[in-house]
Amino acid sequence: MRILILGADGYLGWPTVMHLTAKGHDVVAVDNYLRRKLFDEVGVEPLFKVARIDERCAIWESVSGFRVPFFIGDLAEWEFVQKIFGEFKPDAIVHYAEQPSAPYSMLNRQAATLTLRNNLLVTANVIFAVREFCPDAHIVKLGTMGEYGTPDIDIEEGWLDVEHKGRRHKFLYPRQAGSLYHTTKIMDTDLLWFYVRTWELKVTDLMQGPVYGIFTDENENDDRLLPFLNYDEIFGTVLNRFVVQAVAGFPLTVFGKGGQTRGYLNIKDTLNCVELSLGSPAGKGELRIFNQFTETFSVNDLAAKVKETGKNLGLDVAIDHVENPRLEAEDHYYNPRHTGLIELGLKPHYLDEPTLIQMMEFACKHKDNIKRDAIYQKVTWA
Amino acid sequence: MRILILGADGYLGWPTVMHLTAKGHDVVAVDNYLRRKLFDEVGVEPLFKVARIDERCAIWESVSGFRVPFFIGDLAEWEFVQKIFGEFKPDAIVHYAEQPSAPYSMLNRQAATLTLRNNLLVTANVIFAVREFCPDAHIVKLGTMGEYGTPDIDIEEGWLDVEHKGRRHKFLYPRQAGSLYHTTKIMDTDLLWFYVRTWELKVTDLMQGPVYGIFTDENENDDRLLPFLNYDEIFGTVLNRFVVQAVAGFPLTVFGKGGQTRGYLNIKDTLNCVELSLGSPAGKGELRIFNQFTETFSVNDLAAKVKETGKNLGLDVAIDHVENPRLEAEDHYYNPRHTGLIELGLKPHYLDEPTLIQMMEFACKHKDNIKRDAIYQKVTWA
Repeated sequence: MRILILGADGYLGWPTVMHLTAKGHDVVAVDNYLRRKLFDEVGVEPLFKVARIDERCAIWESVSGFRVPFFIGDLAEWEFVQKIFGEFKPDAIVHYAEQPSAPYSMLNRQAATLTLRNNLLVTANVIFAVREFCPDAHIVKLGTMGEYGTPDIDIEEGWLDVEHKGRRHKFLYPRQAGSLYHTTKIMDTDLLWFYVRTWELKVTDLMQGPVYGIFTDENENDDRLLPFLNYDEIFGTVLNRFVVQAVAGFPLTVFGKGGQTRGYLNIKDTLNCVELSLGSPAGKGELRIFNQFTETFSVNDLAAKVKETGKNLGLDVAIDHVENPRLEAEDHYYNPRHTGLIELGLKPHYLDEPTLIQMMEFACKHKDNIKRDAIYQKVTWA
Repeated sequence: MRILILGADGYLGWPTVMHLTAKGHDVVAVDNYLRRKLFDEVGVEPLFKVARIDERCAIWESVSGFRVPFFIGDLAEWEFVQKIFGEFKPDAIVHYAEQPSAPYSMLNRQAATLTLRNNLLVTANVIFAVREFCPDAHIVKLGTMGEYGTPDIDIEEGWLDVEHKGRRHKFLYPRQAGSLYHTTKIMDTDLLWFYVRTWELKVTDLMQGPVYGIFTDENENDDRLLPFLNYDEIFGTVLNRFVVQAVAGFPLTVFGKGGQTRGYLNIKDTLNCVELSLGSPAGKGELRIFNQFTETFSVNDLAAKVKETGKNLGLDVAIDHVENPRLEAEDHYYNPRHTGLIELGLKPHYLDEPTLIQMMEFACKHKDNIKRDAIYQKVTWA
């Protein structure tokens, strides 16, 4: 399959490039290094230096034999999009090319505008390019479980059958998100759904929960092929942050009561979910939605697990309930359905002690790189 | 009250400027002439020439004594927005500053991108400016009944109480629109709702149906103060178009079966609804939603009324069921609630024979201006 990976330099983009080439697909990688520019802007850096995409493609080719052409450019610019799609005419597109941080989107007006502009215009350009150059291509779009927020009823998989005054209608599940970033993902879903209906596109929208881990089948023997590991409050996902905080002797920063519950998954499962979606594409005129996570935890659950594993490794991990800089429910109902990907064949990698030990031992190796100032920056929603 | 009117040159903007000054408010008018630029781009013009906003403000001052400062600029540009809000610090903002045409938004990629970019970035800038310069100001935003689409259950006023598996949750009513333009209005609502929750803004989002008419209390004796009357398929609302088609001897173009039912209102009621909303603002942290229309008609109902009134005026009006260029249900359930504005005191101007006669006689006066080519352009959704 000819697959275009947009946002290929990112935390999930790069592992996806390797995984799909290893599975025999013909992959083209695209990125504009937005994430790296934002690291510089907000003054954070990943736990270890990650080579640029051209270097990583060269390393990957030298170890695997798979060649991945890459293009650096801004997918919000039509001329660039036109060139990529016109030349490659993909069978499928994996679309990760979005500003990915909720706290960044709440930092200030400029950051909010960048998030809104980038995420919406890139998604629109992908839609227009598919329509023009490859109308039968399958778009696999990374959404987020955060689109649903935390309603008081069960979260279904994308859609909700409503009975009201004796009549029934099936709606896109009503969405209400907790940050501007998450709100742009709601808008992306609305945009995709409109054009799926109008132009009969094939779209899979993956409502993914927070991802943890950096190790995959393709990089476990070569640290040069690892993705970004962010431990800062802005770009680090919560479990990755806690692991690094534990190693740094920095008390785990639980926001407020810590009852915030979400669906999590191992980065290996992200790759499997994307691969399974590609292998069994959405039909023409279908917006297929999967809730992409494998198990739910509260922030308190994650902190307790990291503390426990830390103890077994001889680390004395403290937990600190800090004032919540975000506006979110800290104690809420949460029962999201997630059977679609399991039915497609997903075999989850659950969060166990060996996984946490591997992450913590790796973080220990890079302990000297940790900038304590970056960990808890109090980016406030107020 | 100090009121900023954004999109003040438009079909509804200009009548609102006059109406609110006549009611004693201190009004500042802002526009970038986008609508006029798009008229040129697609090759249409209103039924009669409408003076630019500076000239209309001068005429209005000469006849009423009310002075309205106006600013020409692009509200998608922060520097301009900052200047306007920083200097005027309004108590309320009436936000009409959007690309207003569904067919235009479906014309091509450039038109779609312009619509998405303009509508989202302007709404975002209004939010950021209120937050920075006048956090207690009341935003009155023009949404559209088209955000709801045509679900098989009753359309409630903005919100839906859902009972699901024995639990309940109140959601923003799930939205699904029929054009990109309408989809950007859904996104606007999502954006406003997010920042209302986060920053306790005061917002009234008016889900307005198609408006008809051009006569208001402020312009009935002076044709120089009339707003645009578009009769083309791109910028003309359906009843305004049918009136001009009847006068031109051009068969009324009913798309498909003509069972498409919507909630309509007289332009006088738009002004009253906006005035009532301003007079009784939303509370802090409240997104108040009103469904703004006074009665529902199918396209067939409207065509029949125009045909009947035409007969009484000696016009032989034909009705033509043309192939529907849009993707929409032509026969559907439609039962939208609209009690909020009535409870605030709205006294509707229903669509009656004298109203239609006044519109048709006015159109007759300008019959020679009608460009028949512009009436039915077949802007297709496909």
